[in-house]
Amino acid sequence: MTNEESELFRLINTVAGPDTSAMESAARRQGTLAKPPGSLGRLEELSIQLAGITGSVINTLTGKALLVFCADNGVVEEGVSVAPQSVTAAQTVNLTRGKTGASVLARQFGVEVYVCDVGVSAHISAPAVIHKKIAHGTKNIAAGPAMDRGDAVKAILTGAELAAKAIDEGAAAVGVGEMGIGNTTTSSAVLSALTGKNAAEITGRGGGLTDEGLSKKLKAINVALSLNRPDPYDPIDVLSKVGGFDLCAMAGAFIMSASRRVPAVIDGFISAVAALCAVRLCPNVRAFLIPSHASVEPGYRAAMDCLGLEPLFDLRMRLGEGSGCPIAMMILDAACAVMRDMATFEEAEIDDGYLEPIRKGADGK
Amino acid sequence: MTNEESELFRLINTVAGPDTSAMESAARRQGTLAKPPGSLGRLEELSIQLAGITGSVINTLTGKALLVFCADNGVVEEGVSVAPQSVTAAQTVNLTRGKTGASVLARQFGVEVYVCDVGVSAHISAPAVIHKKIAHGTKNIAAGPAMDRGDAVKAILTGAELAAKAIDEGAAAVGVGEMGIGNTTTSSAVLSALTGKNAAEITGRGGGLTDEGLSKKLKAINVALSLNRPDPYDPIDVLSKVGGFDLCAMAGAFIMSASRRVPAVIDGFISAVAALCAVRLCPNVRAFLIPSHASVEPGYRAAMDCLGLEPLFDLRMRLGEGSGCPIAMMILDAACAVMRDMATFEEAEIDDGYLEPIRKGADGK
Repeated sequence: MTNEESELFRLINTVAGPDTSAMESAARRQGTLAKPPGSLGRLEELSIQLAGITGSVINTLTGKALLVFCADNGVVEEGVSVAPQSVTAAQTVNLTRGKTGASVLARQFGVEVYVCDVGVSAHISAPAVIHKKIAHGTKNIAAGPAMDRGDAVKAILTGAELAAKAIDEGAAAVGVGEMGIGNTTTSSAVLSALTGKNAAEITGRGGGLTDEGLSKKLKAINVALSLNRPDPYDPIDVLSKVGGFDLCAMAGAFIMSASRRVPAVIDGFISAVAALCAVRLCPNVRAFLIPSHASVEPGYRAAMDCLGLEPLFDLRMRLGEGSGCPIAMMILDAACAVMRDMATFEEAEIDDGYLEPIRKGADGK
Repeated sequence: MTNEESELFRLINTVAGPDTSAMESAARRQGTLAKPPGSLGRLEELSIQLAGITGSVINTLTGKALLVFCADNGVVEEGVSVAPQSVTAAQTVNLTRGKTGASVLARQFGVEVYVCDVGVSAHISAPAVIHKKIAHGTKNIAAGPAMDRGDAVKAILTGAELAAKAIDEGAAAVGVGEMGIGNTTTSSAVLSALTGKNAAEITGRGGGLTDEGLSKKLKAINVALSLNRPDPYDPIDVLSKVGGFDLCAMAGAFIMSASRRVPAVIDGFISAVAALCAVRLCPNVRAFLIPSHASVEPGYRAAMDCLGLEPLFDLRMRLGEGSGCPIAMMILDAACAVMRDMATFEEAEIDDGYLEPIRKGADGK
């Protein structure tokens, strides 16, 4: 094992489970709030999950960060994407300008965006981009492994470091997004390798493939899997053989968020696959995951089923970039507010002289 | 026709349809934004609907209001509710203290709450409550009509006036909620009368009825319908015979919002039934309606099907009070931000020298 791989496993060993005693206190407090029991549904569940994450019953998300990992994928050579590879680099820069879908939504909701180049196939000199390029894109998974194992570990640690930086800079919730032409192809390949599911069931049209494009994509995934034979019990092997730098870094960000006991918000399909990689590396990560929207990609549902998670909302979004995270963070804010600000039954019954019943006996008591 | 009924029909006649030309411009602009077409799903649809409502392609919801109409229902005599009637009055006051579920969520998201007593069965002297009491609760619908036709019209106009006041005070979006023990019973009765659906299909457990309570509730609804014989083609007749002051006022608020060309946000089951009443009185209202969450009550789905609307999210909430509206308004904010702040393809392609492709020919072009 390399030094870097040892470092990763040291990080993984720091991730503890949820604080069940805080969760019990939180559930008890929800039961005392002035409302029919359970009537705030998933807001109640989220508030209890947050207690397990932070160890406190009362929470406020003082800062929020969206991490967007940008990388290119050699598999685009197989014609698996409608958009040209140059879009990755262009959107990496545009993300820092606050003009892409996710960065617009992040600004609207006070979420700080961290744009990280972990492997874009272009020289990017934009100062607002965080430069952590491991290589100029991966190799074509339909012709061999995407990267060597050492680079996969390096990419995972890079994602972990960025999450740590965002948390050090004030993030109390971390969203995990990506930009990378071709990354629904690698995500389907990773998901198929990890779950044994047939690629055809979990592969979709990404940015808008035709039937012909979809069949090229399926073929590339099946060739990649039979050629590279990733070991389903070794997520690093899977990521290095048929994944991408973005998926690796995202998995690392999920692990670090869990290690630092900060909720980590999943975006769509690619983010869900990265979260699954993180959980396979470190099962304790699961308790720290917050889903956001239901992605249209067919593999999303399979990934969430493996994670045992249900999306919070379905706006039929399929943009990527982390665009679902800012909205999910608002729902987390709502969950915090309910637990923090609602009156208990006892407080709600305080009589300040404003009420005078007029039909005694008719009130069902 | 009374003077007040004439006033209501004059208001109804002011409601025009959506601005289809603004909607076409909005759809065209969505097509130029730098993203795969349709990839922001319902955010795109909402931004186009908003253009139809306001007549402008670019929108910002500068102010937001949640109207909560509070009233009691005589049908509680039949044992249709788990909570005592006194809860209506207590929660009416608590809503103004910012301590109930909906008022906590409203404050979290910068939504101003208007709490209006249209028929609570108690003297309420709290100064923050808007006093528009029509009567001390309705009569028991299982023994006769809830109210006379004149009072129903008065309640509808009261709701309309409150919406006008909120809009005059700066609301660019209006949420419509309620507080009233027994109002899932009246809502199911109204929905059954308007749609001809069997009460058993559209009646649920409200705040948490037992099997015995549910059977009392169903019996009360069926007796109310066969005794009062509301005319399904006359929504005012339906509301006055088997509805409540809250449902009437809510319907009026939906109509006024549409008249003033402001989006009106539906909360859960009761709000959806009131919206259906508004649309039956004035079909043009439909274009101004924004759904929020999927309510657990079985009648919610039936009401939304009649309206041709799909909820935006499902957090398994069933609190009422308008608690779903603040979250839906955040999603509306997201839709506004996308249309207003995202770069077009043309703007996204501006080359500022930050990029240098490194593998010419490999980018799929």
